[in-house]
Amino acid sequence: MPRLKAHIAYDGTDFHGWQIQREEPTVQSVLEKCLERICGKHCDVTGAGRTDSGVHAFAQIAHFDWDHHLPPDRLVLAMNAIVPFSIRVISIGEANPKFHARFDAHSKTYLYRIDRNRIFDPFHFRYALHYYSPLNEEAIQQCLMEIRGEHDFKAFQASRSDVVTTVRLMHNAEIFTPQENFFGAHPHFLCFRFHANGFLRKMVRFLVGTILEISSGSRPPEHLKLALTTGERKYVGVPAAARGLFLEKVFYEP
Amino acid sequence: MPRLKAHIAYDGTDFHGWQIQREEPTVQSVLEKCLERICGKHCDVTGAGRTDSGVHAFAQIAHFDWDHHLPPDRLVLAMNAIVPFSIRVISIGEANPKFHARFDAHSKTYLYRIDRNRIFDPFHFRYALHYYSPLNEEAIQQCLMEIRGEHDFKAFQASRSDVVTTVRLMHNAEIFTPQENFFGAHPHFLCFRFHANGFLRKMVRFLVGTILEISSGSRPPEHLKLALTTGERKYVGVPAAARGLFLEKVFYEP
Repeated sequence: MPRLKAHIAYDGTDFHGWQIQREEPTVQSVLEKCLERICGKHCDVTGAGRTDSGVHAFAQIAHFDWDHHLPPDRLVLAMNAIVPFSIRVISIGEANPKFHARFDAHSKTYLYRIDRNRIFDPFHFRYALHYYSPLNEEAIQQCLMEIRGEHDFKAFQASRSDVVTTVRLMHNAEIFTPQENFFGAHPHFLCFRFHANGFLRKMVRFLVGTILEISSGSRPPEHLKLALTTGERKYVGVPAAARGLFLEKVFYEP
Repeated sequence: MPRLKAHIAYDGTDFHGWQIQREEPTVQSVLEKCLERICGKHCDVTGAGRTDSGVHAFAQIAHFDWDHHLPPDRLVLAMNAIVPFSIRVISIGEANPKFHARFDAHSKTYLYRIDRNRIFDPFHFRYALHYYSPLNEEAIQQCLMEIRGEHDFKAFQASRSDVVTTVRLMHNAEIFTPQENFFGAHPHFLCFRFHANGFLRKMVRFLVGTILEISSGSRPPEHLKLALTTGERKYVGVPAAARGLFLEKVFYEP
């Protein structure tokens, strides 16, 4: 039975995250129901990143086993005809039978978008955090520097998480003005990008929330380092809103 | 009692249009409730264009009389703190006491956005029509030329409309690839712009629907002219989806 690898983009606004939850619509549940409608039997779909409620994805990667005559390129069309406009299957291809979307991913990038306009753009409110107050860019750069490298991000994870280790390698953490992306050029937007070998639940939102509090002066700059060294939640800010967060890319060995 | 003029932008997705309808949320009803919360009594808000259900506005203009100590610039902040993110008050200023947002408007422009990508962008599905099939650009230009000028647009209005005259002067009708606008540069998007001294209900959507049918070859090119000369609905296409339509600008005498 061939294993397929799918590239999926979604607007997470109306979903309770990626992973199936009882009675709540999730991206995974919509995709599994869609595949069942096409092939007539249940089909497990496994995603690379289990995005939280309200979080978006430019490029979620998923795998599933496909025991049906419909070829991958036709399956793209069939799925897009069934799923809501907020989910789009960008492409599907055949993968190695042992390919695993989550376990084989060696790193991922997440973006966090911030609207710096005086008035929050009503056509972006689902896709950004509005933050008009002054920000100290030097303080932001200092925070991003401290985050880079291998750290125990225990303080930056959602409560009730059960992971084996909370140590992650942050390959890069940067801030930039998007020149050209899915949303076009927007001089009034700022974007954080985090590239790591893995992310804990709500980790990016806790990081962004803490950085914003430090760079606006409402939290002492040394708290970030203290959070990383002590693992204590008291040094961490309020998590930034889910709607600004995007799973941007998942990296695999070539 | 000073008359105020407000510039309002909104994402129409979640509203049943501009104008108040019983029990349905409309932009006008949200604004009137908001003003009542601030000043303690009812306040009539009149808009320049009565956009339909699901139609957006970059720049709706509205007027209302304001008998309260809060000055216009503070009222902007107060309103934006109350209304949902899908509505933003961009600015408010004092107007001539006789200013009327609708009757004084001498013309308006509407935009209609079309996503020409193979796969409908999941972050624009609320703000565009997806149209991937081939389009004959020459046929589109021919249609736009025929629309320009003074015509009886009776065939292009929603049923159950009660207007005195259905004759409108179309100053301009054009199609372009947006270089830079609220959504940034998007090479995969096409945009229609219609500039007229007035619009009938659903007129732009009927025009775009008819033009798309003609330029895709599913309707004879002469139908557009026949619709304008005979006023018969049979020469008109299915109205294009509301979600692609934006009230772009309202023009007043300086």
